[in-house]
Amino acid sequence: MSKKPYRPAFRDRVRPPRHGGTRGPARRAFQRGQARDDDDAVLLYGWHSVTEALKNPARRFRRLLATENAIRRLADDGIALPLTPELVRPAVLDARLTPDAVHQGLLAEADPLPSPDVDELDPSGIVLVLDQITDPHNVGAILRTAAAFAVAAIVTTARHSPQVTGVLAKAASGALEHVPIVTVQNLARGLGELKERGFLTVGLDSGASDDLAAIELRAPLALVLGAEGKGLRQLTAATCDRTARLDLPGAIKSLNVSNAAALALYIASRAIG
Amino acid sequence: MSKKPYRPAFRDRVRPPRHGGTRGPARRAFQRGQARDDDDAVLLYGWHSVTEALKNPARRFRRLLATENAIRRLADDGIALPLTPELVRPAVLDARLTPDAVHQGLLAEADPLPSPDVDELDPSGIVLVLDQITDPHNVGAILRTAAAFAVAAIVTTARHSPQVTGVLAKAASGALEHVPIVTVQNLARGLGELKERGFLTVGLDSGASDDLAAIELRAPLALVLGAEGKGLRQLTAATCDRTARLDLPGAIKSLNVSNAAALALYIASRAIG
Repeated sequence: MSKKPYRPAFRDRVRPPRHGGTRGPARRAFQRGQARDDDDAVLLYGWHSVTEALKNPARRFRRLLATENAIRRLADDGIALPLTPELVRPAVLDARLTPDAVHQGLLAEADPLPSPDVDELDPSGIVLVLDQITDPHNVGAILRTAAAFAVAAIVTTARHSPQVTGVLAKAASGALEHVPIVTVQNLARGLGELKERGFLTVGLDSGASDDLAAIELRAPLALVLGAEGKGLRQLTAATCDRTARLDLPGAIKSLNVSNAAALALYIASRAIG
Repeated sequence: MSKKPYRPAFRDRVRPPRHGGTRGPARRAFQRGQARDDDDAVLLYGWHSVTEALKNPARRFRRLLATENAIRRLADDGIALPLTPELVRPAVLDARLTPDAVHQGLLAEADPLPSPDVDELDPSGIVLVLDQITDPHNVGAILRTAAAFAVAAIVTTARHSPQVTGVLAKAASGALEHVPIVTVQNLARGLGELKERGFLTVGLDSGASDDLAAIELRAPLALVLGAEGKGLRQLTAATCDRTARLDLPGAIKSLNVSNAAALALYIASRAIG
């Protein structure tokens, strides 16, 4: 792997995340076992999350903590470091994270990445829209699969969404560096803007009459996913051009939301080509 | 929904789970935030996990704890109760579980379901084989998706697999009642037995040259999935008839294992028809 020079992003392009009042969600996130973070810093840990960030010239780091083994592995893999790592013992990283966090000797604090607006999205390909999906493991897995399918962006609500850090970043396994996250205050309005920009908006709904694989899809496409149990909110479903279900032949008729996202992306990618 | 009479399973058909020494895994499971359980009891909580079990005549219950609201909802939905529930306050359930566990007013202790042997599997349809996938959320999500695709069975190793209880059962969302779990001591030998019974064995491997969607698949089919990061063990891959990858066009080339399982099942189900 060639060593890339570090090109810092223009600081003034980095907008603060537009989360609303985060005291409640932040506290709940902590109770759910997410790592703590300082103000708006993004906490990244684990090999893929940190090394993908190190390779991303737009990512601006504050600190990089690494064990001796991790520093050797970074050098072996030829990964250029945009800042000097602080050599730490594994126990230092253990103490920063919850007991089940697998840090693999790497922990970084970084600025959030720029978050584009809906009107900056190129009207091509597929975007995923998340309607109040709150579980950080699920949102992280969705990001990872979105990056695997070259999704153009994730659109999510400012409220009732997990913070883009810690557990979510770990589950995303480096995908944060590849898929921009668009945060909107009002999802129905955001969907309206996507429609104005030419996106076909299709909501996934297990109660819909049409099978996603059987309806006509075209780019640019926005696939809209609701939270498990609750599904799409009524206004979200009503705002979509149409709704569709996944065709499931077995006894259980709903999937984990990240599994549903993976199937929907596969079906849509093949349909659009 | 019609009320089904409760038909108890023959007690002597219920084999104890063939997990090896579980002290280590059980302790790790506890640290990962799984609920405690007594000896081999299966702990079920949450609406879908408990109600699907209540509807399963083969499930033998030891205790059913329910809040007033949950008892009313069970009655409203016409779900017949095979045992008298113990009325509890929500705090009693909270105290039995970890803070992030969503119990929805229902908690049951039950016997494990019968676990068939490989030689009892009907040589038809699709089975999923899990090669030391340890995360209970992932295994639970895989079970749920397997039930949605009417998978005939899950084959897993006695060691290096999470216990079929608590967090796994919750993530499976009732799928435990629909997909038998076959536990083998040695996965390569288990794959050999599947091959003897006529199964085509295909290992998912991100480094394989063939795309799963492009190779010829036929029933009975065993899809073999490895743990994230590690992938298939060498002997597992060597024992499979062939290996194949998922075709992922984006920057990230590997998926969360439950997402990979969902795509593989979708592709295989369509190919087999």
